[in-house]
Amino acid sequence: MTRTIDRRTFTALSLASTAALLTGCAHAGPGPQLDSTGRRTGTRTQVTILLYPGTTVLDWVGPYEALHRVNGVEVVLAGKTTDIMKSDSGIVAYKANVSLEEITRTDVLLVPGGAQGMMTAANDPVVANWVKQIDTTSLYTVGICTGSLMLAHLGLLQGRRATTYWKFSDMLAPAGATFVPERWVKDDKYWTSAGVSAGMDLTLALIADLYGDKAAMMAQLAIEYDPHPPYNAGSARTAPREIIEALGG
Amino acid sequence: MTRTIDRRTFTALSLASTAALLTGCAHAGPGPQLDSTGRRTGTRTQVTILLYPGTTVLDWVGPYEALHRVNGVEVVLAGKTTDIMKSDSGIVAYKANVSLEEITRTDVLLVPGGAQGMMTAANDPVVANWVKQIDTTSLYTVGICTGSLMLAHLGLLQGRRATTYWKFSDMLAPAGATFVPERWVKDDKYWTSAGVSAGMDLTLALIADLYGDKAAMMAQLAIEYDPHPPYNAGSARTAPREIIEALGG
Repeated sequence: MTRTIDRRTFTALSLASTAALLTGCAHAGPGPQLDSTGRRTGTRTQVTILLYPGTTVLDWVGPYEALHRVNGVEVVLAGKTTDIMKSDSGIVAYKANVSLEEITRTDVLLVPGGAQGMMTAANDPVVANWVKQIDTTSLYTVGICTGSLMLAHLGLLQGRRATTYWKFSDMLAPAGATFVPERWVKDDKYWTSAGVSAGMDLTLALIADLYGDKAAMMAQLAIEYDPHPPYNAGSARTAPREIIEALGG
Repeated sequence: MTRTIDRRTFTALSLASTAALLTGCAHAGPGPQLDSTGRRTGTRTQVTILLYPGTTVLDWVGPYEALHRVNGVEVVLAGKTTDIMKSDSGIVAYKANVSLEEITRTDVLLVPGGAQGMMTAANDPVVANWVKQIDTTSLYTVGICTGSLMLAHLGLLQGRRATTYWKFSDMLAPAGATFVPERWVKDDKYWTSAGVSAGMDLTLALIADLYGDKAAMMAQLAIEYDPHPPYNAGSARTAPREIIEALGG
């Protein structure tokens, strides 16, 4: 006879999961506090993620997965419309929960990357004007992967240090930004990360900046972020030359 | 005057992105080959990801983001219906591209985790029977995070070594599986990972198993997976005791 998890155990799992959702797992952190510059006085942090057709999904799902578990953080997914969109690969269908016009200010603005879709969005006046307007209200403006190129294209990274996806590092200079080959870079309120998966590292640092080390460690454990990649090939600084060349770098 | 990326540069970016999509960035790897056991002879690998309401999004987006870039891999998102679903947090809206009944076999079956939603799906006869049927056709059956508990609940991990989300490690034994505290565990064709973000590490190993080290390294660089978490708190083996207790562990 097939052994399955019996009803009592599965109920216990249910209760454990529910408890986790109600306490630590979903809501990590001791709660809001003033940041080191005294800039924040509120107890809630609204993080608004810009979604557009053609995003690289991990660019925003990585940050989302850590942020939504932090006590005090509200994650809002905003798009030009709330219609269904497709990812850069055409495979993942997703949608925003609110339209851009519903968001007039935010604490953290996060712009994910994409390829053609990012450029189309950056050149769409509705999206571009919204990003520039919301940026005037934000405590943090974050670009993940080529999302930082959208910020640069809109003039927000002029004279600043920043980073982006490794293949496009020379695209920051034409917009007046200086490329820094780090996993993530902060210059005043402008935080940018390297490609795709780097958004998770930036986000943990951002959570620490908002709510302290303990909250960030809780978020890290909540998503069991104990990375063990089987190779040391995740950066243009460490990957074998043939791997870089195979990707056109 | 605001400096923006000029048209010529942006066009170059467009061309670079397009080239990347057509070559290395989107399609990493030298192409299919026989695996070490000689089990595979085809040139394509179909990876079917089971989506259900209440998934933990990073559980499947992490693997997806690496897999879809591998030359020869087709990623299919399958659900009981193709209606819009919400994630475990209620924040992310996503949808499957095909219904379960459209998939009668696959090379790789990947089951992501969730909390209540995972249990509801595991107890839905349509989903449960589909998973058990597809498993009879797969070359690999993969459980990410509590996705491995669904596999266990359906009797697929009996007598096998497996892993799951750190908080639920004692939920495998009642289904006859032995918990192994590793980032990912393979036992014959059954591969399971630790929580949430661990799916990326498992996936790179899976790509290597399918297509070799070079393909896996290309996928790793394509998603710039060079993790630098700011703390060593991502595992119950390394996190401070107070962090584990704060999450109810």
